[in-house]
Amino acid sequence: MLKDVSRTEAYQKAILGNKEQFEGKIVMDIGAGTGILSLFCAQAGAAKVYAVEASGLANVTREVVAKNGFSHVIEVVHGKAEEIDLPEGAKVDVIVSEWMGFYLLHESMLESVLLARDKHLKPDGVMLPSKATLYAAACRLGQFYTEQVDFWKDLYGLDLSPVGQAVLDSKRCKPEVAVVKADELLSAPVQIADFDLAWLGPDEIERVHSRAFTSVVCDEPTEYQGVCLWFDCAFEWPDRMASSPVKLSTSPSSAATHWKQTIIVLPSSIQVEEGDLIGWELTLNRSPEHRRRYQIELNLLDPEEDEHPVPCSCGQARCVVISAFMAKADQEPLPDDGVDVFSTGPQ
Amino acid sequence: MLKDVSRTEAYQKAILGNKEQFEGKIVMDIGAGTGILSLFCAQAGAAKVYAVEASGLANVTREVVAKNGFSHVIEVVHGKAEEIDLPEGAKVDVIVSEWMGFYLLHESMLESVLLARDKHLKPDGVMLPSKATLYAAACRLGQFYTEQVDFWKDLYGLDLSPVGQAVLDSKRCKPEVAVVKADELLSAPVQIADFDLAWLGPDEIERVHSRAFTSVVCDEPTEYQGVCLWFDCAFEWPDRMASSPVKLSTSPSSAATHWKQTIIVLPSSIQVEEGDLIGWELTLNRSPEHRRRYQIELNLLDPEEDEHPVPCSCGQARCVVISAFMAKADQEPLPDDGVDVFSTGPQ
Repeated sequence: MLKDVSRTEAYQKAILGNKEQFEGKIVMDIGAGTGILSLFCAQAGAAKVYAVEASGLANVTREVVAKNGFSHVIEVVHGKAEEIDLPEGAKVDVIVSEWMGFYLLHESMLESVLLARDKHLKPDGVMLPSKATLYAAACRLGQFYTEQVDFWKDLYGLDLSPVGQAVLDSKRCKPEVAVVKADELLSAPVQIADFDLAWLGPDEIERVHSRAFTSVVCDEPTEYQGVCLWFDCAFEWPDRMASSPVKLSTSPSSAATHWKQTIIVLPSSIQVEEGDLIGWELTLNRSPEHRRRYQIELNLLDPEEDEHPVPCSCGQARCVVISAFMAKADQEPLPDDGVDVFSTGPQ
Repeated sequence: MLKDVSRTEAYQKAILGNKEQFEGKIVMDIGAGTGILSLFCAQAGAAKVYAVEASGLANVTREVVAKNGFSHVIEVVHGKAEEIDLPEGAKVDVIVSEWMGFYLLHESMLESVLLARDKHLKPDGVMLPSKATLYAAACRLGQFYTEQVDFWKDLYGLDLSPVGQAVLDSKRCKPEVAVVKADELLSAPVQIADFDLAWLGPDEIERVHSRAFTSVVCDEPTEYQGVCLWFDCAFEWPDRMASSPVKLSTSPSSAATHWKQTIIVLPSSIQVEEGDLIGWELTLNRSPEHRRRYQIELNLLDPEEDEHPVPCSCGQARCVVISAFMAKADQEPLPDDGVDVFSTGPQ
């Protein structure tokens, strides 16, 4: 992970920029790898760091810890975080982990982190990152089309366009991990999932489902070619006043990370222009066989035919009215005769 | 393969630059893929091209052929070249194939090509490429060390060098595919294998073995960090006067290809200077379980202790004398009393 500067610096800032949150604390680093996060925690003044690494890399982690003179603080534990036992049933104040995969969930060890949280974290302990949000937006795919689809149209004087179509077809089975430019986004980001790591249940990551309508934003008519996924992670403490929160964003508008963006490529381009309404139903289902993978399903919705969610931020007159009505209802105190409570139980 | 210009252009030049070798001929394209080689052959005037493709891509190949108006010449056959039967036991004049993998042999379909040759090629038929040669040379590894080993020595003010050592250790199990610069080579190329595709037996690719000594070539003392492998392929016809031979080289001195070079990384750097003698024993054994993979074994030899092969081009006085003596003997006609034939059999 260390070649990804955005990533490592976010953790470094979250840890070393909040030393008062680490001084004298017990920390668990899940999936310690090279040990860099454990070292940051030790530098921040942690009294004890359990650097948990399940792979054979644990020996290297131990060497790195020794080389930097932190063997008295950091204890490297070879095992799975949810399976190991800490001495005398000790609980930890902070769990720090870099568990995020492509589109947040792919190849992730999030479940392991959540189970370890339930086993090892004190009731008022802190998870770092503390929040993770998954976004989607419509996009065009300049580079992908140039290099992988249009590329085949004229090559050595021959027309190999069926190969480009085969590439498009192959993307129905596997999303594309690539950099999408900020100006290739064709809609505002739609929030697909919002995880609070302190409370998220392991069963809640089995399925992520989103149904959304949004309006196209573009300077001139263009091609709607994919749905782009990315995530943000926040590092926050319960007492925000006494800490400096940090955000790690993998959005097209932020500095590129090794996660890039994940693109669900449409089977073919769709001509769109400013203000056009588009809709999708997006489901990420954890694979029953390959527990570290997800099956992603995207269905395009017809904004005229298919029912919009309530509330809906698509901007269509009907949805604007409903949203405004609901927002108003939320703000007003309930009138005395406003709500009847019906009960079918015994009086 | 089409993004690799050196590769495609070599085939294009070999085929379209030798139209007289294709006019009216029957050709088999093994592993046709996108169909580009078949199209070149059809453009060169072939009477019939069997484009053999074992994967599901065969449907795409068929579409590409139709799109370019060559369905009357090119017949796409879905199957393995060594298993299919041509109509009425037809034999072909030319087999063209792009079968080469990393370090020539990795993931290769060479065996399939050789078996198909024995089944489908006329006795005087031509293989394209016709020759393949594998080379090795000592090298230093500037970029690899900078990015994957030295990189870890000082990171965020921490010493993570054990990770760099772990990277080096991991290379004992898997060679590195990367670009080696021409000025990083530390010796003349040593020929490891030389295949004549017309005669090569399928059993001859089970094991490639080379034992060699060579002398270091460098401007100033430097680090010997790896053995670099690459290959050349030649496209030649039996009558060289009537054809234009073409060579495709993947050497560090040629334009980069997708094959790059394959590096066997040494467990640690060795300080060397101009004229130092180095030796190795290099074996590529085809894996009994994974038939498309090879196990590569490199043992460094001690030029003082270990016996040199005969002849040896290492430049050491003893080897120079032996080589000169052998070369002279080769050139001179045998004197009348030069050779006695001893027989232990019955007179």
